[in-house]
Amino acid sequence: MLDPALAAVRLAVRTSLADVPDGSVVLVALSGGADSLALAAAAAHEARTRGIRIGSVTIDHGLQDGSDAVALAAAKQAAALGIDPIVVRVDVGKDVSAAGGLEAAARSARYRALRDAASDARAAAVLLGHTLDDQAETVLLGLARGAGATSLAGMPPARLDENGLRWLRPLLGLRRRTTRDACTAQCLAPWDDPHNVDDRFSRVRVRERILPVLEAELGPGIAEALARTAEQLREDSEAFAEMIDETIEDIVEHSEAGIAVSAAALAANPPALRNRIIRHVVQSEFGVALTRVQTLEVARLAIDWAGQGPIDLPSCSAARRGGLIHFTARDQQRAT
Amino acid sequence: MLDPALAAVRLAVRTSLADVPDGSVVLVALSGGADSLALAAAAAHEARTRGIRIGSVTIDHGLQDGSDAVALAAAKQAAALGIDPIVVRVDVGKDVSAAGGLEAAARSARYRALRDAASDARAAAVLLGHTLDDQAETVLLGLARGAGATSLAGMPPARLDENGLRWLRPLLGLRRRTTRDACTAQCLAPWDDPHNVDDRFSRVRVRERILPVLEAELGPGIAEALARTAEQLREDSEAFAEMIDETIEDIVEHSEAGIAVSAAALAANPPALRNRIIRHVVQSEFGVALTRVQTLEVARLAIDWAGQGPIDLPSCSAARRGGLIHFTARDQQRAT
Repeated sequence: MLDPALAAVRLAVRTSLADVPDGSVVLVALSGGADSLALAAAAAHEARTRGIRIGSVTIDHGLQDGSDAVALAAAKQAAALGIDPIVVRVDVGKDVSAAGGLEAAARSARYRALRDAASDARAAAVLLGHTLDDQAETVLLGLARGAGATSLAGMPPARLDENGLRWLRPLLGLRRRTTRDACTAQCLAPWDDPHNVDDRFSRVRVRERILPVLEAELGPGIAEALARTAEQLREDSEAFAEMIDETIEDIVEHSEAGIAVSAAALAANPPALRNRIIRHVVQSEFGVALTRVQTLEVARLAIDWAGQGPIDLPSCSAARRGGLIHFTARDQQRAT
Repeated sequence: MLDPALAAVRLAVRTSLADVPDGSVVLVALSGGADSLALAAAAAHEARTRGIRIGSVTIDHGLQDGSDAVALAAAKQAAALGIDPIVVRVDVGKDVSAAGGLEAAARSARYRALRDAASDARAAAVLLGHTLDDQAETVLLGLARGAGATSLAGMPPARLDENGLRWLRPLLGLRRRTTRDACTAQCLAPWDDPHNVDDRFSRVRVRERILPVLEAELGPGIAEALARTAEQLREDSEAFAEMIDETIEDIVEHSEAGIAVSAAALAANPPALRNRIIRHVVQSEFGVALTRVQTLEVARLAIDWAGQGPIDLPSCSAARRGGLIHFTARDQQRAT
């Protein structure tokens, strides 16, 4: 009988690949850890009957001694599974000054390399090895930011990017230990990334110190509850995004100096939509994410106006004139 | 100079009372703990210039030896503040078998007693002493249930019930320690409820063991982040509830056997609304809260129908017939 963990991983990959055309190229992001190794093996297995060609991309972040050897070992394991492996060396250092530090820099370098590899290989999809445990950790990290449904919605199981590339996370419903068991069942030896226990990373502290306390104090099943929460909050965020997409062009006016939104339309919407429209307009026009406090201050221009404003925001300012809330670039404003 | 904690509590109470008519009666739920004692004192202070009459209601749950003496002491403190105190003895035991155990039973007995007291006193509002810390704890408890925005939305700062009574939580933006400092500044001696450190209660475990770990590992400000999350998710829930209110009667048909919803209307809505409509219909018709899995199974009758069903649900069953999803009481169904 097929090992149940192995069967679960294969079923998850099969389900996730259902929307990928037969005969296409699919890349697996392979660190060599248990999750991505089990994912690669299952992808290779499922690809056979579908005429899908599986490649693997192993990113050498160059952050640890011997990272090249680790990457090479993962590539060799992939080759033994009948996968076309490549190793990409990225330079994380150049992004590290950005917000979020080393973790964020490594992530953006990694995704850029995966995007390039997918483009080179004309791949239809990239498979990522995130598990339910990763999702639960992401929700808790989002909770610490306190930025509402969007920051708690975690990672989507499937996302189609602007280039038509599918980013799939087949293992998002499975526990990490299932991927480890699936490796054992196939005699695959996963690599244990020392970064996974390096407590300088907030994600590691969530995994090693917070989730165990939550499980002990509130009972088992907390990781599943967090993942379920993420799924529902992602639905909520998507519904609001859809509503904004449908209405935004009717309520904004573009000008050279910036963008303006109808105060009446803002006031007519419930706060959940009003505040999202404000954030959306500023984000898309000026590339800035407003805080909750800033958003509410702008909202008061629409719903509680007593002549106040203009309001200074990062990169722009907001002012009410003639039934419109005008968002003007800060430099533009100084010039006038 | 006025003590800053005392000033913060008074400002919060003044703001919260702004919508309460001058000259009305307002009750404070007074346990004698720091939060409700600071609340009662601030209410008494703010009431003077408004012609508002403040009463206090202290609930004796009868769960601890000497609870009658504790309640009496709180009532005496209230009287010294110029408040009309009453003590109500409730019988928690009779509700304790219900879901949620002792905590839920005590809460429902407490709210029933407060409702009755407000009705007797013809009160316009009841003030509750919940702080930002309580809100953060509520969010974490909701997270453990994993039931989406509704369970994470925490407690509302203001709610108008079906009898026109306002339930106000003026202190929801303040830390618990601020209420303690405000008591100290007025030489008020709060009572320390031994239940507040009794780790049989999941809320106590969240307070004593989970929040400190979250603060230590993810940095200070986690309680504020949780409260901010609750505020935004409450907005989201209210927006969806409003949308459902506006459309529900157009898409349902009532019959003697139960209620039916248009499959096309369900399918046309984004999942966030579709799943909420399904839960809303079953909740309002049969008084049952569907789980996520049950909700999604019903949704598939609308969006992914291949002749499956009927689906057995608690108290009812769902089946697709003639473009409608019919929800029928289980007894009705057996009778036909």
